[in-house]
Amino acid sequence: MITKEQVLHALSFVEDPDFKKDLVTLNMIKDVEITPNRISFTVELTTPACPMKDHIEHACRNAIAHFVDKEIGVSINMTSRVMSKPDKQLDNIKNIILVASGKGGVGKSTVAANLALALQLKGAKTGLLDADIYGPSLPMMFGLEGARPKASKTSDGKTKIEPIEKFGIKLLSIGFFTDPNQAIPWRGPMVSAAIKQLFNDADWGDLDYLVVDLPPGTGDVHITIAQNYPVAGAVIVTTPQNVALADAQKGIAMFMMDTIDIPLLGIVENMAYFTPAELPENKYYIFGKDGGKHLAEKFNAPFLGELPLIKSISDAGDNGYPIVTDEDEPISKEFLIIAERVAQQLSLQHAN
Amino acid sequence: MITKEQVLHALSFVEDPDFKKDLVTLNMIKDVEITPNRISFTVELTTPACPMKDHIEHACRNAIAHFVDKEIGVSINMTSRVMSKPDKQLDNIKNIILVASGKGGVGKSTVAANLALALQLKGAKTGLLDADIYGPSLPMMFGLEGARPKASKTSDGKTKIEPIEKFGIKLLSIGFFTDPNQAIPWRGPMVSAAIKQLFNDADWGDLDYLVVDLPPGTGDVHITIAQNYPVAGAVIVTTPQNVALADAQKGIAMFMMDTIDIPLLGIVENMAYFTPAELPENKYYIFGKDGGKHLAEKFNAPFLGELPLIKSISDAGDNGYPIVTDEDEPISKEFLIIAERVAQQLSLQHAN
Ligand SMILES: Nc1ncnc2c1ncn2[C@@H]1O[C@H](COP(=O)(O)OP(=O)(O)OP(=O)(O)O)[C@@H](O)[C@H]1O
Ligand SMILES: Nc1ncnc2c1ncn2[C@@H]1O[C@H](COP(=O)(O)OP(=O)(O)OP(=O)(O)O)[C@@H](O)[C@H]1O
Ligand SMILES: [Mg+2]
Ligand SMILES: [Mg+2]
Repeated sequence: MITKEQVLHALSFVEDPDFKKDLVTLNMIKDVEITPNRISFTVELTTPACPMKDHIEHACRNAIAHFVDKEIGVSINMTSRVMSKPDKQLDNIKNIILVASGKGGVGKSTVAANLALALQLKGAKTGLLDADIYGPSLPMMFGLEGARPKASKTSDGKTKIEPIEKFGIKLLSIGFFTDPNQAIPWRGPMVSAAIKQLFNDADWGDLDYLVVDLPPGTGDVHITIAQNYPVAGAVIVTTPQNVALADAQKGIAMFMMDTIDIPLLGIVENMAYFTPAELPENKYYIFGKDGGKHLAEKFNAPFLGELPLIKSISDAGDNGYPIVTDEDEPISKEFLIIAERVAQQLSLQHAN
Repeated sequence: MITKEQVLHALSFVEDPDFKKDLVTLNMIKDVEITPNRISFTVELTTPACPMKDHIEHACRNAIAHFVDKEIGVSINMTSRVMSKPDKQLDNIKNIILVASGKGGVGKSTVAANLALALQLKGAKTGLLDADIYGPSLPMMFGLEGARPKASKTSDGKTKIEPIEKFGIKLLSIGFFTDPNQAIPWRGPMVSAAIKQLFNDADWGDLDYLVVDLPPGTGDVHITIAQNYPVAGAVIVTTPQNVALADAQKGIAMFMMDTIDIPLLGIVENMAYFTPAELPENKYYIFGKDGGKHLAEKFNAPFLGELPLIKSISDAGDNGYPIVTDEDEPISKEFLIIAERVAQQLSLQHAN
C-alpha cells in the first residue's frame, strides 16, 4: 500500500514558481488520503486568484505518476487561504489594496471596480471602498444611485454601517450618504473623518481583499489611509502620456516615502490605444505609446497589463456594471489576468 | 463739412449684438476726427477677443456710408478695454476665470492653457495660474520643467514672486517650487497657504484675464479661492460620459452655492469623439455622445465648444507648447472660438 510519505516525497518535487520552493516545504499540502486505487489531497494556495493554479495542479499529477504510481487515480482539491502579514491586518480584512495614480481620470475607479470583481470571480472574499469623497464613482458604476446602506448593531452594542452587496462583493462609498446633485465642499479634516468612518464603522466581515479606489492627488485621503491602516500594497494606474506619468510618479514617490512605505504591486497602463472596428489591425496611440511600461521599468515594478480605449468599458461604467461581469467581452479576460498578477504580487510580498 | 454729431447719429444705428444697445449709448465710440475726405474714430469693445469685432466694424462702415457720405474714407481703430466689476477686481487683475470640472483628467489643464493663450493671441493681457498642487501640469505643458521664478522687491519693500513669461503670458505653478520627482503629501491647510501665496505674493502686473487651472474635486483649493478672491466666472470642462457629467454637475453645484456664487461662463465638451486619419468621415464616440451639450442645457449655460480626441493635443501638452500656439493646426481655431465665447460671456456678466 502507498504511504503518505511516498506522496509527500513525490510532491516535494513540485515547485511553486512564485515562491521558488516546493509545495511540501511551503506547507501547502493538506489532507492526504490514500485508498487502494486513489490518492486524494488538498493544495492550499496563497490566493484563489493564483495565476499558476492550473500549472501546479498539473505538476502534482505528473509527480504522483512519475514517483508513485502511473495508474492510480488522483483527486486534487485546489483551495486557498489568502495570506496576510500579521502586522498588516485590520480586523478581519486580510489585504488592503490601494488603487491610485496622482493623475485624474486615468481609470483608477474603472480598474478598482474591475479588479475587485475579478478577485471575487476567482473565488476571493472581496470588498470595494470608494475613497473619492468629491467625485465618488462607485454608485453609478454599480447601478446603485440612491442606495442607502443600513445600520446594524453589533453584539457589543456599537452601530455599524452594512456595506451594500452587489455582484458578490461588499461596497461602500461616500456617495451612498450624499445627494448626487450637491457639491461636497469639504476641507481636509472633514474628508479625513469621513474616510475613517468608512473603514472603522463599517461591518466589512471577513475579507481576503479590500480594494480602495483613491481620488487623484496625494492629499488628505491618501495621508489618512496610509497613516491609519495597514495597507498591503498599491496598484498604480496611468495613461501613457508624459503629463500623466509625471503625476503617477509623484503618486509612487508618496508610497515610497519612509513614513508611508507601502509596497508597489505594479502598474496598469490604461487607455493605451484605440482600435476602430473597421480597422482591426490599427492601433491609434492617441495618448502616446508604452508610457506605463517605461514607468514600470523605471521603478522596477511589475507591469500588470495594458488596457486599450474601448467604448464598452466606458458604457459599462455608465450603465451600472463593471465590464468584467460580462464574460463575453474579450477585455474581461485582461482584467482577470491583472487581478491574478495583483494577487500573486501580494502573496510574494507576504512571503518575503 | 461733416459734423461729429452726424457721425454719432449714424453710429447710433449700429447695435452691439451682445449688449443689444447701440455703440453710442454704450459709450464705445471715441476720438472722432473729421477731415474733408476722411472720418476716423475708435470703437472701444469690452474685450479684444470679441467674436463680433468684424461684424461691428462692418456695420459702422455701412452706417457712415448710408447716413453720412457714401464716398468718404473711413478709418476705424478697433480697440478694447476689458471690463471688470468694480467689486470683482483683485489689484490689477480685471477678471479671474476658473477652469474646473469636479472630474479628473477631463482636460481642465489643456483647456486652461489653450484658453489663456488664445485670449493673449486675441490681444488681451493674460496670466495662467496652475492651482493643482498635487499634480501641477503647467511646467510640462509649457516646457518649463526646472524653471524657477525670480523674487523681486516692490517699491514698498515687499518681496514678490515674478511670474515666468512664455508665449506672451504670465505663468505660475506650484510645480515651479517643488521637485518633480517628489510627492506633495500635503494636508488641506498647507494647500490653502500655497494657493494664497500664488495669488497674493506674485507680481501679476496688469492683467485683463487670469485663468486659473483648478484640480479635480471641490476641496480646499476651490474653497480657498472662492472665499478669498473675486472670481469673475467659471468654465466647466467635461467629457461626455455619465460618470464625468455627475462630477461636473457637483462642480457646478459648488459654484452655484449661495456662499460661493460664481457665475457659470459655459461648458466645454472635451474628448467628444475620435476620427482616425484613414476614416475621416467616421466619428467614434468612445465616451458617449453629446454629454456636455446636455449638461449645458440642463443648467441653461452657454455651450462653449466641443473638442475631439486628437493625438496632437496630447503630444503638444507633452512637448511643452499648448496646441493653440500652432496656427496650422485645425483645432487651434476651435480654441480661439472658445476663448471669444468666454470673453463675450464675461462682458455680458459685467454689463448685467
Ligand atoms: N480603457 C478604457 N476605455 C474606455 N473608457 C475608459 C477606459 N478606462 C476608463 N474609461 C472611462 O474613462 C472615464 C474615467 O475613468 P475613471 O473614472 O475610472 O478614472 P479615475 O482615474 O477614477 O478618475 P478620477 O480621477 O476622476 O477619479 C470613465 O468614464 C471610464 O468609464
Ligand atoms: N481633446 C484631447 N485630445 C487628446 N488628448 C487630450 C485632449 N484633451 C486633453 N488631452 C490629454 O489628456 C490628458 C488629460 O488632460 P488634462 O491634464 O488637461 O486634464 P485635467 O482635467 O487637467 O486632469 P487632472 O484632473 O489630472 O488635473 C493630457 O495628457 C492631455 O494632453
Ligand atoms: Mg475615480
Ligand atoms: Mg489638470
